[in-house]
Amino acid sequence: MSSATQRGKSAKKNVVLGADIGGTSTKFGYVDSEGNCLASASMPTEASRPADSFFRRLCENSVDLFHDMAEEYKIAGIGIGAPNANYYTATIENPPNLAWDFVDVRAELDRYFNIPLAITNDANAAALGEMLFGAAQGMNDFIVITLGTGLGSGIVANGELIYGADGFAGEIGHTIVDPNGRECGCGKRGCLETYCSVTGLCRTVQELIRNTTESSTLRSVGDDELTGKMIFEHAQQGDSLARRAFESCGRILGLKLADSVAHLSPEAIILTGGMANAGELIFNPTRRSLEEHLFPIFRNKVKLLPSKLTNCDTAILGAGALIWNYLSKNK
Amino acid sequence: MSSATQRGKSAKKNVVLGADIGGTSTKFGYVDSEGNCLASASMPTEASRPADSFFRRLCENSVDLFHDMAEEYKIAGIGIGAPNANYYTATIENPPNLAWDFVDVRAELDRYFNIPLAITNDANAAALGEMLFGAAQGMNDFIVITLGTGLGSGIVANGELIYGADGFAGEIGHTIVDPNGRECGCGKRGCLETYCSVTGLCRTVQELIRNTTESSTLRSVGDDELTGKMIFEHAQQGDSLARRAFESCGRILGLKLADSVAHLSPEAIILTGGMANAGELIFNPTRRSLEEHLFPIFRNKVKLLPSKLTNCDTAILGAGALIWNYLSKNK
Repeated sequence: MSSATQRGKSAKKNVVLGADIGGTSTKFGYVDSEGNCLASASMPTEASRPADSFFRRLCENSVDLFHDMAEEYKIAGIGIGAPNANYYTATIENPPNLAWDFVDVRAELDRYFNIPLAITNDANAAALGEMLFGAAQGMNDFIVITLGTGLGSGIVANGELIYGADGFAGEIGHTIVDPNGRECGCGKRGCLETYCSVTGLCRTVQELIRNTTESSTLRSVGDDELTGKMIFEHAQQGDSLARRAFESCGRILGLKLADSVAHLSPEAIILTGGMANAGELIFNPTRRSLEEHLFPIFRNKVKLLPSKLTNCDTAILGAGALIWNYLSKNK
Repeated sequence: MSSATQRGKSAKKNVVLGADIGGTSTKFGYVDSEGNCLASASMPTEASRPADSFFRRLCENSVDLFHDMAEEYKIAGIGIGAPNANYYTATIENPPNLAWDFVDVRAELDRYFNIPLAITNDANAAALGEMLFGAAQGMNDFIVITLGTGLGSGIVANGELIYGADGFAGEIGHTIVDPNGRECGCGKRGCLETYCSVTGLCRTVQELIRNTTESSTLRSVGDDELTGKMIFEHAQQGDSLARRAFESCGRILGLKLADSVAHLSPEAIILTGGMANAGELIFNPTRRSLEEHLFPIFRNKVKLLPSKLTNCDTAILGAGALIWNYLSKNK
């Protein structure tokens, strides 16, 4: 490359490509260094087809999306959030909901783009998103909890995301509430996410319907029809059984987050994901239970906050933050 | 200082002073950069007298101990392990078992030595001791658990000790086994250290004596006379109630350490302190329970190891490692 070309290129502004691979659809977009999402799109993951055809489509669609930006910007790197993604090896191993055994993401992308790449799971990406662009800006020690179908978590300590010895740290959803408790998809019993997640909330409502006499309009809803949104709406309308389910969920979440604080002494815990949108219905009981169960020296110190990533899809921003963070450490 | 003096000084080898302040006695000694303890001594803490008289005596005794080394060595820094010691502020706040409300350790020591200082609690110091000189050499992610009167812990992630937002991270002893469980000295119920510590082991034996019909020679020992050493000796001699107490302790410890692994994905967990000397009596049930309760991706990965700090008092080595670590980052 001639130095004239280099000068020409460096006059362009850097953006990164952030992509979030889900079981059904994959979102991707271009994020600048200030956390603005300049363009975004989504495509079906087609999770039953081989990984190489997925990455070909992702690259083609990303190039398409970049078309109108190419004059002004260049792509400095790619960040990907995906289930069971390993930061250290840039591989995806036995992802749930995807028919891929093992994917060498670096090799897949190298066919199309020879630029820096970082991958991790969606909750870790969310944590970096909050650190660079959201509610955790300026914090060195915090935890992000994503309350969706399951419970994901990303932990930052000393200003660094914790990947652990094998790249899979931050599985707070699989800490144990009760070793004889609810069966979890992971094969264990009593994992936190079987109580505190949209799925967990639905299980709690079903338990309350069976085990109590509390009246509720939710009693007429079939088990298969019950959704988190339905429980939220009934709780908002004052349904006491639905409110009790949120209360129970927050109580267990606060208890286990007190354990997380005992490990890490974070400045804040950020609740994000679909269920966090229930607002005070989930924040209030969680906060009460957290304070009640904290080791005394940590009381009244730890903030419980909502996400601040609102100007774009949070998953794209998280994946973008992942690669921006990587680039800042690997100049 | 003239450059001639500087040259003269730099010809001497560096050592650090490591001190561990306990409720009854304080141990101190000089540690070289390879973890050799070149001289050590101890003195009564006299915890009921004011802090300034303690630090005067510590400095006088340390200078005395240094006398024969002064020709060859110079003191590069001081590391102190103490209860409720805050790394960030170099202060000790309301230490249990000591009649000091608040001690500005930096100010106390500045009267005598104007050299680098780092302080933290004994379990954090133990973690750095293992990292620099012991079983965790070369590891970036590990946890040290000290099983003594209580249960202390020090957590290292990304090669750095985790102090957290307020300097008090690493309180795994106060994670909650059962929110309706045993009363803890901290004011909560069901903390891990009420089950897994020498004190916890004694409580378990007393519970087994009251709640079971299992025969045991420990039944003739009064509650006030029962010690961890006694339980260990009876267990070694095959007393089944004593063995059951170790089994129960290890089972609970393994369950809660599985939560720690879910957070941090450490390469190893190191058990140290008096109770870890019970060897396989405590390691075996802990290892079994840990593996049973681990999230599947972590199984058969995490080593459960004894301490390797044996060539000197581990507390002095830990305090020495603390200041060596500090010096390496603040050149």
